[in-house]
Amino acid sequence: MNLIEEFNDYRARMNDKILAADNKVLKRIFNLDTNAFAEGAIDIRTKEMLGLACSMVLRCDDCVKYHLGKCKEVGLNKVEIFEVFSIATLIGGSIVIPHLRRAAEYWEELDNQ
Amino acid sequence: MNLIEEFNDYRARMNDKILAADNKVLKRIFNLDTNAFAEGAIDIRTKEMLGLACSMVLRCDDCVKYHLGKCKEVGLNKVEIFEVFSIATLIGGSIVIPHLRRAAEYWEELDNQ
Amino acid sequence: MNLIEEFNDYRARMNDKILAADNKVLKRIFNLDTNAFAEGAIDIRTKEMLGLACSMVLRCDDCVKYHLGKCKEVGLNKVEIFEVFSIATLIGGSIVIPHLRRAAEYWEELDNQ
Amino acid sequence: MNLIEEFNDYRARMNDKILAADNKVLKRIFNLDTNAFAEGAIDIRTKEMLGLACSMVLRCDDCVKYHLGKCKEVGLNKVEIFEVFSIATLIGGSIVIPHLRRAAEYWEELDNQ
Amino acid sequence: MNLIEEFNDYRARMNDKILAADNKVLKRIFNLDTNAFAEGAIDIRTKEMLGLACSMVLRCDDCVKYHLGKCKEVGLNKVEIFEVFSIATLIGGSIVIPHLRRAAEYWEELDNQ
Amino acid sequence: MNLIEEFNDYRARMNDKILAADNKVLKRIFNLDTNAFAEGAIDIRTKEMLGLACSMVLRCDDCVKYHLGKCKEVGLNKVEIFEVFSIATLIGGSIVIPHLRRAAEYWEELDNQ
Repeated sequence: MNLIEEFNDYRARMNDKILAADNKVLKRIFNLDTNAFAEGAIDIRTKEMLGLACSMVLRCDDCVKYHLGKCKEVGLNKVEIFEVFSIATLIGGSIVIPHLRRAAEYWEELDNQ
Repeated sequence: MNLIEEFNDYRARMNDKILAADNKVLKRIFNLDTNAFAEGAIDIRTKEMLGLACSMVLRCDDCVKYHLGKCKEVGLNKVEIFEVFSIATLIGGSIVIPHLRRAAEYWEELDNQ
Repeated sequence: MNLIEEFNDYRARMNDKILAADNKVLKRIFNLDTNAFAEGAIDIRTKEMLGLACSMVLRCDDCVKYHLGKCKEVGLNKVEIFEVFSIATLIGGSIVIPHLRRAAEYWEELDNQ
Repeated sequence: MNLIEEFNDYRARMNDKILAADNKVLKRIFNLDTNAFAEGAIDIRTKEMLGLACSMVLRCDDCVKYHLGKCKEVGLNKVEIFEVFSIATLIGGSIVIPHLRRAAEYWEELDNQ
Repeated sequence: MNLIEEFNDYRARMNDKILAADNKVLKRIFNLDTNAFAEGAIDIRTKEMLGLACSMVLRCDDCVKYHLGKCKEVGLNKVEIFEVFSIATLIGGSIVIPHLRRAAEYWEELDNQ
Repeated sequence: MNLIEEFNDYRARMNDKILAADNKVLKRIFNLDTNAFAEGAIDIRTKEMLGLACSMVLRCDDCVKYHLGKCKEVGLNKVEIFEVFSIATLIGGSIVIPHLRRAAEYWEELDNQ
């Protein structure tokens, strides 16, 4: 199983279990996530770049993978993705670089699908 | 080997090696850890919830696992654990969600033991 | 004006302005904050200690002030507060100490009210 | 002196002193900052939103102020700014809210100039 | 009162109050702080540079001030201090720059004493 | 394949891919990394200790591995390494301990090479 399926399967399976626990606050946070990234005054492409950049500076590999998947869906290309990477690495510092490596690997897989 | 044994074995083995290095400051920090979570003006159940919540907002999977194990020992139930999860996810943001997934998975294993 | 009034006034004034901007996601996050700390399987006293500990390890002075105010309201005493401080400082490290100083100062003012 | 002048004056004065210390690595980092936010495959408006969102989730008031000033210059409006705020607060959690308050205050000043 | 006295006075006054609260864990953490930075296999000069660099990447202005004061005491010069600054800013990213400004200002005051 | 080869191979392979993407800002950041840790007013041994300590308090396992490898190359011994560990764990808190375990394991492999 490749990186993409592995991530998506685990994510979907555990999200189901978390929602099944029926905690109202957690369910609303999950819901908000959908709302915040919907088309608004800011278009979806830009919002996904925001999600990607924030995930990188906060150094969360899974969040980076999720937003890279979305960035691919909304049609961002490799040059744009690497500009987001460069801004996040500059702001977040060289401590971001190991996450950049895993992000570049995941993007490559998305590109080869 | 399941998640619980894997975590506990690695933790015990490496803690022994670290203590064997005989660095006084590190040994005292390990010691303090025992002291801080002992019964005091605040009871052990509450202290373990504090340890769990702090570990989640700081996004440390191993620390979450450790405190989930302790929470199980002191008799916290799934509804209580998910309330701690919800507070930590609200305070720490959606960046906590990937750690929440792994925490929910680990708790399920603890429940199935 | 003392620390407590200064904090509460600014907080109330700016919260009003933020809510007036009428962004649906932000309004729901503010709402969730009320929900998450309401009585549930975990009592309010414990939840406020969770909020305080998380605020300290994440090193947010204003969040610490807010939860210290709530901790005072729900009747926590100085010994309990300092046990929360000690757990947060151990988990978060000596980098938390400057925030501990400001927290101790704010608690003293709350105690002298 | 208002918030905007105070921030800009201190920033300019200290940047001069830092550059005068003539440390090559620091000078290049300052230089990179200019490069990274220049027009590229991604337009300047989007890049400034990226800078703003990253600054908020990393909870740096001065960085937020800097990028809010730039966002104003490139013509972003209040509704767009608050959408960036909402995504950053959702990702970064309620711990971001005190920074959101100071950001909203600074934006208001920029709007009233 | 200058930046140095203001910092030292507040620090000393609040440390006394915290220690007076007589929480055993906090007292031991304060104690450890003295131990960890004492001469050992690593000399004091290097240890203070470690303390300074860690404080900068963790973006704690008060911790930076404290270690800058110590660095001055052990005889580090401006070129050395700026090399520590440059490593910390590279690792921690441009989000460190506002703290670098305040650090440079504080160092200048220490130099002018 | 052992931990050291695995880390070095993945790091080298992904760095090549990232540099091949030809983003100017990222290439310069990679370049700066070499410059910042070169001999200067501060010697290389001290700089590598700074890199190690910063990596630990920022809790980045890969960065810790990288600097441990460099620390070995410049001749630091186990007692010195554990003093760096102790300072980083004190400053960063017990949340650093899981990273300390992996660091101790990696150092042991470097020692056994």
